Amino acid sequence: MKYGFGIDVGGTSVKLAFFSEEGQMLDKWEILTVREDDGQQILPDVAKAVETYIAEKKLDKAQILGVGIGVPGPVCNGTVNRCENLGWGVTDVSGILSKMIGLPVYVGNDANMAALGEVWKGSGKGADNMVLVTLGTGIGGGIILGSRPLDGVHGAAGEIGHICVDSQEREPCSCGKFGCAEQYCSARGVVRLAKQHLQKADEDSALRRLEMLTCKDVFDACAAGDVLANEILERAYEYLGRVLAAVCNVVDPEVVVLGGGVSRAGQPLLDGAQRYFGKYVFHAARSVRFALASLGNDAGVYGAFKLVLDAVK
Amino acid sequence: MKYGFGIDVGGTSVKLAFFSEEGQMLDKWEILTVREDDGQQILPDVAKAVETYIAEKKLDKAQILGVGIGVPGPVCNGTVNRCENLGWGVTDVSGILSKMIGLPVYVGNDANMAALGEVWKGSGKGADNMVLVTLGTGIGGGIILGSRPLDGVHGAAGEIGHICVDSQEREPCSCGKFGCAEQYCSARGVVRLAKQHLQKADEDSALRRLEMLTCKDVFDACAAGDVLANEILERAYEYLGRVLAAVCNVVDPEVVVLGGGVSRAGQPLLDGAQRYFGKYVFHAARSVRFALASLGNDAGVYGAFKLVLDAVK
Repeated sequence: MKYGFGIDVGGTSVKLAFFSEEGQMLDKWEILTVREDDGQQILPDVAKAVETYIAEKKLDKAQILGVGIGVPGPVCNGTVNRCENLGWGVTDVSGILSKMIGLPVYVGNDANMAALGEVWKGSGKGADNMVLVTLGTGIGGGIILGSRPLDGVHGAAGEIGHICVDSQEREPCSCGKFGCAEQYCSARGVVRLAKQHLQKADEDSALRRLEMLTCKDVFDACAAGDVLANEILERAYEYLGRVLAAVCNVVDPEVVVLGGGVSRAGQPLLDGAQRYFGKYVFHAARSVRFALASLGNDAGVYGAFKLVLDAVK
Repeated sequence: MKYGFGIDVGGTSVKLAFFSEEGQMLDKWEILTVREDDGQQILPDVAKAVETYIAEKKLDKAQILGVGIGVPGPVCNGTVNRCENLGWGVTDVSGILSKMIGLPVYVGNDANMAALGEVWKGSGKGADNMVLVTLGTGIGGGIILGSRPLDGVHGAAGEIGHICVDSQEREPCSCGKFGCAEQYCSARGVVRLAKQHLQKADEDSALRRLEMLTCKDVFDACAAGDVLANEILERAYEYLGRVLAAVCNVVDPEVVVLGGGVSRAGQPLLDGAQRYFGKYVFHAARSVRFALASLGNDAGVYGAFKLVLDAVK
């Protein structure tokens, strides 16, 4: 019997999972992401976690196909080119980690790994071509073409959140540009739109009585019939539909999957995005299927292990 | 010695070329595109042209690797899904043509074939990943990933001209949507911007003295120092930079090639597009190379023959 690891390095925790060759998740756990010292402890911690697991389970390294790992930065040929989240500069993750643990290591961008996970075991199952948009604090994107993640020449493919969808924007995005989709459709973006809208509008709204406004509050208020909340979300949906149309005009996938915290809003989000998508997409690409992500936080470790399977196959 | 054909079906003429297996163009010629009767004569005419050439050159069909053909519509698995330009509905080009001429036929979208040509023998030479934007009467786009054209699931990949770059637009594009890049950066789009700008502005301009304003006039006037012409082109460049940034945020290619009639404007167009591209693109994708297309009208037949080579290889 052969096995492998799928690992997802995040800014707060590192998720690890142990898989059978058949793709069954047999175990999963987390360790803390130590970001001190420019994140220099992260890879040694990962190596230790893997080694400890192998020793505890009395596994032979010959049984381990390899380790797949997703990291939050642009990846080219196993090397990540800056991870601001972790404090890393250019880091040869594959070289460093495989030397530490004596196993083959395959590296991908975390958003791409989540996409690979969803197309393998989640909502994209059965599709060869998929776009995953992760609507979290920011927006991540992963593109699967021919069943493989598209990295891009500089590891920047799928940077969907930083497509300009409003050239009139005067506030800068965290990336320094103006009018990025992330400024409107991420959790933080929805809150930003909400604050702007509440300031401009005169009508009353349940949202005015909240001290700390969250994205979920806006969705909840809208579901409860709040008019302003509805207007705020319509704006967010329009931006989201517009950016998804741009992406689909470029790669024309079979399915678009919405994931991340914001996607917990469920069907209303899906319907809203799809309505405006239809307004902006080129007719030939319009019959794409929309779905909500189904693997949640496990998407990344699934995808990371799939990278191992694809490499050894 | 083995040979093959590369064919490019346009709305006015069909370009045909005869190639050696090594990729040398040995001959090229054109026939008229007969659009009467919903274009039903086009494929028989193509078949006849190929058969006649083979007979005249006393070739044996066993020497012919195949026929590659680019058509102006979305292509999936050898079938084109509507070519409004030609009057075709869903047409199994590969099946129909290969039955007529008894040779393998490989079909692609014309913009994709032009991209494949440029990456094989033109300005994209040496790159595996390229975006070609054809700025003609309209805007076409072709995307090469891993040295192969990206068709998309519905044959709609690379529809760059119909990405929305101005959500404030009130005039519809030919596709029925609003704010498509084609409305600003195609030859027709530049003329449209020019007319709008001349109407709004008070200053004099050489363009005011022209009866039939063309895209070339705007570039010529700008080169001669005309202030309004310069302002018009700056707007077009901004839209072009914005849509190219969107495309590069999605696929992150090695090189962006500008082709089509508008690209005869040369270096100023390249510089202008690249300047605004830098304003909109995500930092990790910014170091893409920009180039002008170099194969002109031959790009399509080169690409179509490359499709044959890739298929038999």
